[in-house]
Amino acid sequence: MKRNFASDNNSGIHPNILKAISECNIDHVSAYGSDIYTERAVDKFKEYFGENIDVYFVINGTAANVLGLSTITNSYNSIICSEYSHINVDECGAPEKFIGCKLINLPTEHAKITLEQIKNLILRMDDQHSNQAKVISLTQSTELGTVYSIDEIKNIVDYAHQNKMFVHVDGARISNACVSLKTNFKKMIVETGVDILSFGGTKNGLMLGEAVIFFNRELSEDFKYIRKQGMQLVSKMRFISAQFEAYLTHNLWYENANHSNQMAQLLYEKLSNIPEITITQKVQSNGVFAIIPSKYISILQEKYSFYVWNENTSEVRLMCSFDTTIDDIDKFAELIKNTVKS
Amino acid sequence: MKRNFASDNNSGIHPNILKAISECNIDHVSAYGSDIYTERAVDKFKEYFGENIDVYFVINGTAANVLGLSTITNSYNSIICSEYSHINVDECGAPEKFIGCKLINLPTEHAKITLEQIKNLILRMDDQHSNQAKVISLTQSTELGTVYSIDEIKNIVDYAHQNKMFVHVDGARISNACVSLKTNFKKMIVETGVDILSFGGTKNGLMLGEAVIFFNRELSEDFKYIRKQGMQLVSKMRFISAQFEAYLTHNLWYENANHSNQMAQLLYEKLSNIPEITITQKVQSNGVFAIIPSKYISILQEKYSFYVWNENTSEVRLMCSFDTTIDDIDKFAELIKNTVKS
Amino acid sequence: MKRNFASDNNSGIHPNILKAISECNIDHVSAYGSDIYTERAVDKFKEYFGENIDVYFVINGTAANVLGLSTITNSYNSIICSEYSHINVDECGAPEKFIGCKLINLPTEHAKITLEQIKNLILRMDDQHSNQAKVISLTQSTELGTVYSIDEIKNIVDYAHQNKMFVHVDGARISNACVSLKTNFKKMIVETGVDILSFGGTKNGLMLGEAVIFFNRELSEDFKYIRKQGMQLVSKMRFISAQFEAYLTHNLWYENANHSNQMAQLLYEKLSNIPEITITQKVQSNGVFAIIPSKYISILQEKYSFYVWNENTSEVRLMCSFDTTIDDIDKFAELIKNTVKS
Amino acid sequence: MKRNFASDNNSGIHPNILKAISECNIDHVSAYGSDIYTERAVDKFKEYFGENIDVYFVINGTAANVLGLSTITNSYNSIICSEYSHINVDECGAPEKFIGCKLINLPTEHAKITLEQIKNLILRMDDQHSNQAKVISLTQSTELGTVYSIDEIKNIVDYAHQNKMFVHVDGARISNACVSLKTNFKKMIVETGVDILSFGGTKNGLMLGEAVIFFNRELSEDFKYIRKQGMQLVSKMRFISAQFEAYLTHNLWYENANHSNQMAQLLYEKLSNIPEITITQKVQSNGVFAIIPSKYISILQEKYSFYVWNENTSEVRLMCSFDTTIDDIDKFAELIKNTVKS
Repeated sequence: MKRNFASDNNSGIHPNILKAISECNIDHVSAYGSDIYTERAVDKFKEYFGENIDVYFVINGTAANVLGLSTITNSYNSIICSEYSHINVDECGAPEKFIGCKLINLPTEHAKITLEQIKNLILRMDDQHSNQAKVISLTQSTELGTVYSIDEIKNIVDYAHQNKMFVHVDGARISNACVSLKTNFKKMIVETGVDILSFGGTKNGLMLGEAVIFFNRELSEDFKYIRKQGMQLVSKMRFISAQFEAYLTHNLWYENANHSNQMAQLLYEKLSNIPEITITQKVQSNGVFAIIPSKYISILQEKYSFYVWNENTSEVRLMCSFDTTIDDIDKFAELIKNTVKS
Repeated sequence: MKRNFASDNNSGIHPNILKAISECNIDHVSAYGSDIYTERAVDKFKEYFGENIDVYFVINGTAANVLGLSTITNSYNSIICSEYSHINVDECGAPEKFIGCKLINLPTEHAKITLEQIKNLILRMDDQHSNQAKVISLTQSTELGTVYSIDEIKNIVDYAHQNKMFVHVDGARISNACVSLKTNFKKMIVETGVDILSFGGTKNGLMLGEAVIFFNRELSEDFKYIRKQGMQLVSKMRFISAQFEAYLTHNLWYENANHSNQMAQLLYEKLSNIPEITITQKVQSNGVFAIIPSKYISILQEKYSFYVWNENTSEVRLMCSFDTTIDDIDKFAELIKNTVKS
Repeated sequence: MKRNFASDNNSGIHPNILKAISECNIDHVSAYGSDIYTERAVDKFKEYFGENIDVYFVINGTAANVLGLSTITNSYNSIICSEYSHINVDECGAPEKFIGCKLINLPTEHAKITLEQIKNLILRMDDQHSNQAKVISLTQSTELGTVYSIDEIKNIVDYAHQNKMFVHVDGARISNACVSLKTNFKKMIVETGVDILSFGGTKNGLMLGEAVIFFNRELSEDFKYIRKQGMQLVSKMRFISAQFEAYLTHNLWYENANHSNQMAQLLYEKLSNIPEITITQKVQSNGVFAIIPSKYISILQEKYSFYVWNENTSEVRLMCSFDTTIDDIDKFAELIKNTVKS
Repeated sequence: MKRNFASDNNSGIHPNILKAISECNIDHVSAYGSDIYTERAVDKFKEYFGENIDVYFVINGTAANVLGLSTITNSYNSIICSEYSHINVDECGAPEKFIGCKLINLPTEHAKITLEQIKNLILRMDDQHSNQAKVISLTQSTELGTVYSIDEIKNIVDYAHQNKMFVHVDGARISNACVSLKTNFKKMIVETGVDILSFGGTKNGLMLGEAVIFFNRELSEDFKYIRKQGMQLVSKMRFISAQFEAYLTHNLWYENANHSNQMAQLLYEKLSNIPEITITQKVQSNGVFAIIPSKYISILQEKYSFYVWNENTSEVRLMCSFDTTIDDIDKFAELIKNTVKS
């Protein structure tokens, strides 16, 4: 199957990452993370996020979110999130199952929750009949391809901390957001005061692997038990760690994210010129959301795989990946153009 | 670090497996298991276990055990297992956390539970104050390197089914057991009537990956949701599936297991000749358990990594892997011999 | 403290109920429900609901809801309910904690969910990333004092069953609804096809006690274990059972509910005549919801306890109880009238 | 049914307690514990346990144990307890379900765990694969009617605190133990350093009701949410509180416990004189454990209800209650004597 626009996880492994897996496949090393590759990968993270962090590798984004959130959420708490958030609609209820808590999902036009919304929510504090709001979870970049500004993050974090709440960031596409904001991880995440970050790798070139990063080390004190009990401790850890080391070396994370963002931008430009098509979201990372008249969708899907995001409005989601080529965009845009004109 | 005897998960990826990962790293494919590699891997499993199975891939043995068990265990049930079982002592309480059930751990000299023990346990049925025994979980080969005979399995399964209970097999080292019994998977597992099998791959040459196999498809009806909610659905599934396809092709599973078993046998033979050392368990798969006078252990551990299984008795566990060489055994045995004689 | 309008659980025990507790306080009887009082209470329920039921007593409404729901909801399922429902906002997340599932809370003007809303929700069935909708939970009478008609219940049940879903009714105030509809329990609940009912007692004259009634006995097969593990098995059960026996004898349930409904009607009539006050909900059971200009509320609360339901709109909730008197209503209404006119 | 020896929960409500329920049944009071009766009951507890405590009422012993334990036990922890402990064998796995943790149940001849046993258990600390032992739970008096001395409690608490562990006491029969040791609650529980106590009422004259007492108020910070989410918040709380107030007034707790202990002592004395009967446990509280030849048991059970504790050894449990009379003992002992002689 050729490259499609269904998801950035339809792509494979970036060659540098695969090479790293291959190169660490020598001899025996201790299992479960007590190995030199894991040590080196953690050091790489410290280069980007500072020394004062704890990093734990898990397998997928759901696990990174749920296990990270479990360290700051009691079962009688609630987590405030966007209605579109992955934790709310794409994890089959894993947060509720694993943590036992409630999600408060806010309506969000662009998948970004606002400080005003949060303020309106902080009700019934101290009321024993009501889950106590404890965590705000932001997705960066969002499920609609939009991006929180650094100020937006900082304001939400400040409000949260003033109200004894924590902020978690679902960063399945954190690299795309970082490129989009022309900033770095430290400014976007550490200096804004975020407490826990799910740092994504799989959607940007890894075979599999996500990292949970704690910026307050008290929160991670027992995380090794949580990860093991959460069924996310990998025995041959070196093969996850080596991927992350390669990912954070020679700015591979940046190259991949920058490329997929640019491809989305290119696709956006081409679709903008087609009058029958309406772009529905700002294109700030690697996805394009657009309304394509429904009668054309199945025709297009015969040749390219992509998701209809909203059946009622005929809105589709078109995701670019680290390996999407200009030629892919050209051909896909050309097909769309010809199809909707026919 | 050279090859050691700490665990069969200290080894890396078998070259054929790594090659399979590499070869499927082309183009885009659908995520989450709707891909040709997964289809082919499932077909391979059907060659070995028959058509009437459901197979789901997860990441590690803990997940395979816990998610599989969750389909046959309600929170008010109990699971009967050996005191040495991985689910009891090496999963940081994942079964209790995820299922909410109780484990009944039986004392077992050789890590094998007996039908007599089980019969004595089936008390307080119908008593609302007591967890209701529902599942028997066997480990094959066991955590002490011993192996249940086909008859032993069959008798336990028959008793379980007569009493409306299920049998789960933790097969983290199922291939080693199969080789040891000179049988095949169908005879050992399907024809004995086992309900659910955790089929291990990681300890026998995979990078990571285990399979949950259901022999009663009613039990797996909702397993896709359980796996997702259990944080074990991998997006780039092809890279797990391709490993299993390779593993089940050209009898790689057999070659690897047979080799590690043979290496254990060789080690056993060499150690048997050292009077200061007492072999404590039958060597039926790829591990050797032996008492080495404690004063020598730290000396040996300077050169080779291995675990002290029981500090009180000075019993050690020496695991062989698919990549352990005759030369490794020779040198290690020689070192032991010279050390204990010194 | 005199009688107030805060809640129907601010009242005490109806004399007949207390008498029943006292009268069964003789000698020893078996604990945990194997006693003659429990047998007689269950028989009473069968008089009202038919022979083909299972009845289990628990302590409070939260437990009745959560334990009942747990028999029809897997952790990967979702429960559809009103945003105002007790399970959603007044149980501190007990359903999520105990079941691990997700609640889908629908916006509802009058706290009644509609069939149309439900139909729009049944999306992503068979999608492993999404909780699978499995249960519709209705509150009868609702948290806003409104009542589902028999047809409304039946239509929702029919749709649910056609779609392999179950219907649960939170009947904390089921007696008030039954009186309001001038029907009986059998017509309202059994003949409409409801699967599980939380039958409330505490809010209508009991000291404490609710019943979980199953109309499909397969669902209750293991409920005794669920109740015990759910920490809701009372040892001296006779004192709960005797209350229910008295409650269902000489139509005490009807008398109490009818009275509190009538008191609400009387209050409604008196408040309707005060131009400064807006009644916000149909008064169909024992509560009156009204907007009282906020400046008067604290003045009134100095003399009578009641809840502000919505601080933004200055809407209050005024609940009548089995022991509310005409004189209570007269005086309270008079005070309101005089206060808002001052 | 006349008074039997099955359990101290087969008895009814002590008249003083029933009177208290009746006397507080006037007017309306705030629900959920914001009432004068609850305030007074809490004050009573402070008279006995000192000012520096938090007290929460729940319905039964299982809830008191599980909810209390949940404040000091994470899911990846384990709780050390006796194999006979109520939490281990009589709560249908409620601790595992609600907390997700593992119980480590120790073999115990007299249902008392020893410091030596605990010391041997504290292994694998810091090992991520193993539940981390965090809590020691003692039952006082034990399920076999024995009693820990103050020194035994203190030594275990000291060891626990030195090892960053907590001590919980299941005090379903704490009053019987207190009488037995001729001490007071403060010396036995507060001054020994116990962290959390389940203070039983139901087995010693209450209709229903247990208290969770925290001696370290940091532990109870969020307990109101835990109790509500744990389905144990009673709306008409006054009727629980009033029972406890009466129970702690005029030493009713002492009178009742002292009486049932004395009755057990009397029964013990009478049975000691029957050569065919072997007393198996020290009679230190209100139960007598004895081996009665099995052929006589069913004959005796025709006239008196009691439990066979161990079918293999023909050991029975004979429980005395606050309302057991000397005449009851005389007649029962006489019957036994005549039966075994026949």
